[in-house]
Amino acid sequence: MNNYILKIDCVDAKGLIYSISDVLYKSDLNIVKNDEFVDSENSRFFFRAIVSGDIENGNLVSRLKVVMPKDAKITLTKKRRKKIIIMATKESHCLGDLLLKEYSDDLNAEIVAVVSNYDYLKKLVDKFDIPFHHVCHEGLKRQEHEEKVFEVLKNYECDYMVLAKYMRILSSDFVRYFDGKMVNIHHSFLPAFIGANPYKQAYERGVKTIGATAHFVTNDLDEGPIISQDVINVTHEFSWRDMQKAGRNVEKVVLSNALDLVLEDRVFISQNKTVIF
Amino acid sequence: MNNYILKIDCVDAKGLIYSISDVLYKSDLNIVKNDEFVDSENSRFFFRAIVSGDIENGNLVSRLKVVMPKDAKITLTKKRRKKIIIMATKESHCLGDLLLKEYSDDLNAEIVAVVSNYDYLKKLVDKFDIPFHHVCHEGLKRQEHEEKVFEVLKNYECDYMVLAKYMRILSSDFVRYFDGKMVNIHHSFLPAFIGANPYKQAYERGVKTIGATAHFVTNDLDEGPIISQDVINVTHEFSWRDMQKAGRNVEKVVLSNALDLVLEDRVFISQNKTVIF
Amino acid sequence: MNNYILKIDCVDAKGLIYSISDVLYKSDLNIVKNDEFVDSENSRFFFRAIVSGDIENGNLVSRLKVVMPKDAKITLTKKRRKKIIIMATKESHCLGDLLLKEYSDDLNAEIVAVVSNYDYLKKLVDKFDIPFHHVCHEGLKRQEHEEKVFEVLKNYECDYMVLAKYMRILSSDFVRYFDGKMVNIHHSFLPAFIGANPYKQAYERGVKTIGATAHFVTNDLDEGPIISQDVINVTHEFSWRDMQKAGRNVEKVVLSNALDLVLEDRVFISQNKTVIF
Amino acid sequence: MNNYILKIDCVDAKGLIYSISDVLYKSDLNIVKNDEFVDSENSRFFFRAIVSGDIENGNLVSRLKVVMPKDAKITLTKKRRKKIIIMATKESHCLGDLLLKEYSDDLNAEIVAVVSNYDYLKKLVDKFDIPFHHVCHEGLKRQEHEEKVFEVLKNYECDYMVLAKYMRILSSDFVRYFDGKMVNIHHSFLPAFIGANPYKQAYERGVKTIGATAHFVTNDLDEGPIISQDVINVTHEFSWRDMQKAGRNVEKVVLSNALDLVLEDRVFISQNKTVIF
Repeated sequence: MNNYILKIDCVDAKGLIYSISDVLYKSDLNIVKNDEFVDSENSRFFFRAIVSGDIENGNLVSRLKVVMPKDAKITLTKKRRKKIIIMATKESHCLGDLLLKEYSDDLNAEIVAVVSNYDYLKKLVDKFDIPFHHVCHEGLKRQEHEEKVFEVLKNYECDYMVLAKYMRILSSDFVRYFDGKMVNIHHSFLPAFIGANPYKQAYERGVKTIGATAHFVTNDLDEGPIISQDVINVTHEFSWRDMQKAGRNVEKVVLSNALDLVLEDRVFISQNKTVIF
Repeated sequence: MNNYILKIDCVDAKGLIYSISDVLYKSDLNIVKNDEFVDSENSRFFFRAIVSGDIENGNLVSRLKVVMPKDAKITLTKKRRKKIIIMATKESHCLGDLLLKEYSDDLNAEIVAVVSNYDYLKKLVDKFDIPFHHVCHEGLKRQEHEEKVFEVLKNYECDYMVLAKYMRILSSDFVRYFDGKMVNIHHSFLPAFIGANPYKQAYERGVKTIGATAHFVTNDLDEGPIISQDVINVTHEFSWRDMQKAGRNVEKVVLSNALDLVLEDRVFISQNKTVIF
Repeated sequence: MNNYILKIDCVDAKGLIYSISDVLYKSDLNIVKNDEFVDSENSRFFFRAIVSGDIENGNLVSRLKVVMPKDAKITLTKKRRKKIIIMATKESHCLGDLLLKEYSDDLNAEIVAVVSNYDYLKKLVDKFDIPFHHVCHEGLKRQEHEEKVFEVLKNYECDYMVLAKYMRILSSDFVRYFDGKMVNIHHSFLPAFIGANPYKQAYERGVKTIGATAHFVTNDLDEGPIISQDVINVTHEFSWRDMQKAGRNVEKVVLSNALDLVLEDRVFISQNKTVIF
Repeated sequence: MNNYILKIDCVDAKGLIYSISDVLYKSDLNIVKNDEFVDSENSRFFFRAIVSGDIENGNLVSRLKVVMPKDAKITLTKKRRKKIIIMATKESHCLGDLLLKEYSDDLNAEIVAVVSNYDYLKKLVDKFDIPFHHVCHEGLKRQEHEEKVFEVLKNYECDYMVLAKYMRILSSDFVRYFDGKMVNIHHSFLPAFIGANPYKQAYERGVKTIGATAHFVTNDLDEGPIISQDVINVTHEFSWRDMQKAGRNVEKVVLSNALDLVLEDRVFISQNKTVIF
């Protein structure tokens, strides 16, 4: 079966679903599944369908463009395993979880490379025969370091960049380059505990729940569109180290769930939010 | 705004969404929101849309019937506050929660009457100026008791019957009468702990989570289509009475959430399961 | 059975549990249950026991004082139903839940009065035959209004003051008066969304979980020691009104759970945190 | 610091905590933390303390035996990294999670060997330089196969045996040998969906939550004392394969959490339940 993902994002108008289904029907294509959402506050229409049949790509998108509002962003992609690059620093739980999932065919992506500013994780990545690149940041300005990272990255094609506990702030140039393509895991239920050591902040505040947030990266630190969140309960018996340890399970599961959604083209970015089908 | 809920349930086929949207478009109606699901295992198509515009009801359904598969079950209902009857026994938490919600305009329904086999709850129901009917079961066979209940019920119209901790088993005649219209709250996460005193069963099994399940009532006790479930954690410190107390919060929230879904016509029954949009 | 709750909070030292159990044993008292926690960061010892036997109160506390560190805060209270006053504004869900729970003997407290700056909730409170006091704030300075509230309050004894969606900021005098005795429900998982309309903030941030926090009230708005928190998941389909509606179930359950803990003397305040047994 | 875990389990009696703390105090030992629970239904007393100081093991236990009820089971163990053996079949997620955790020093145990009835997982285990033993069951009776497994096991010392998705039923001899020392992960929230393919059972029942349960293994399949449970929500869109995939994250986290508790000597077995401090 040839399955395609059709995503449309445009200003809302009357009859959009009719227009889309009319084009698909007349192209002899079948809608296996469709989801639709209208953000009435901003008058935006979001549509995603799994379409089966014989598709001449350019043709279908052109035909849809004729009947859709002018601003419509239409993408049609064949269902396929995406390529991702992972950046990490020292912690292994999120990275390791993704390595294991790929190894067990439980991740709908190929990890083409891992880049880190330390070499701590090299041994682990080597076990899974995936290229590991240590790009040390010491003694370098942010821009210099990122240029070196880019030199590594240019050897790989990737659909998404995954920050699996990459603990350095990225320049706006770097962020812009991966606009809408870079997913980060933050170790708190945002917007609580933005910034450094959220577990210590949580401990000091005396919260009874801690959590994690996976989000797209934008220029505003920890402020990008949220994809997935989860929490667990803690008690007064938890030191911040205990919270950190307990939080690792949440972090890795939240990141992995978010990637599942992103890799299946189920996520739209709508200003600073996500629409997820 | 005239908003209608259109629900269609039929055998799956090619082009159904096109056919539906074609009819709606040509009737000058707008789809405010639509959800669709294909149960591929059973080849069933489920569709729900919020439709706005001027609708001549019979007409639209007829036009849809022409283009849909023969077995299609099509309902078109104007958005309105439904009527419900509540049956309960002695416990007040689920009933009370619904009374409060209606009182505060937080329940999308009118409670037209409460029926109980005891008179314990009369005082509470009276506070909210809702008719309370005590239909005592003592000394009566099941059928005799249900006949008396029916005599009460025939004075009211209702869209749904809600069993808010009604602790008597119902005859198949009674169940059949409210087929697809009767919602029960069971005090366990089904299918665990079917039958009597689930909290005692849970206590004796030593589980670490307890829960509640809202489901449509069918002839098989606690086996009907599940609408909503939730759980909470317990520890070895919980007696079964503690579990029962803690469980009450779950029961009332799960029942209330399930009713919200049912009352907004968001639930389809598909054999022994639900499809919920 | 005469059951007492013994609570001790002091600087940590060697042999404290021995010293306590020695005194209890020699007083011919039995420890039904005990919990203990050492906050090693601050070198504080927290101890709570349910003690059974014939107790001459003053005597036991005196004997314990002899063997405990000088700063020890020792309280011994007979298990009893506490008295609470509830303050609310317009929303009924938290107040109503507590009224219902008391009515059904499911709240370990007597609600002696309800005070509100509006009269919206009078009808509801009247149903449960509990004194309702409308103390209008219009045209009054904060201090003037609080003085009028105090005039009402002085007619009642209470163990705890419960803010069940009381939407006005309290002066530091008012807060100090109920130091460690006033519990508030905040409609977000603190410290996220401090201040006004957290649901709107949550909606605008595009979070995927919303929650509620019950905490003791201190001078710093929404910054007091947290007792209980919980969250639920939301999606892009939720308007902020939908979040508010869904959040109500969380708010009332979190407040009710926190009160259960407080009313059973299970909560210690330790600076800006709680220790809960 | 020399920290020891003292665990006592005996018939309940007056003054037990006094007697224990008296012995500890007179042995010049400090209680860093203690937890206590009385199962009043069965009149059992459970006590666990972290004790610091210079301990002559045999001596302390003897002195405690003098003052405790005759049936008292007293264990005193120095805090140390335990040894575990893992048995698995084909699925890698639970095993891999434990391998990663040990590799990252996030598991309070040493994995001394992995035994499987297939060789699928050999490659993965080899990456982590841990002995892997393939003990094929084909053509063998249960007893014959288990004898071969025992021949492998006798080369290793272990504190606990972990069944990380080992899909074969064990004989009562095997179970008895590891009495109270063998932890299994079952892929449902027990007691729902005992036996084969719980996800398929869950799918067919149409539940809205699925879960996992870690428990000690006893002769009754899936009936042993439960250590830890957790659930996640599912919808009608989940096929049973989707449930299985989503469930993997729950399974591995529940097993890992249960092991954390067991490995820190925080779990008592009390008939068919656990008491966990």
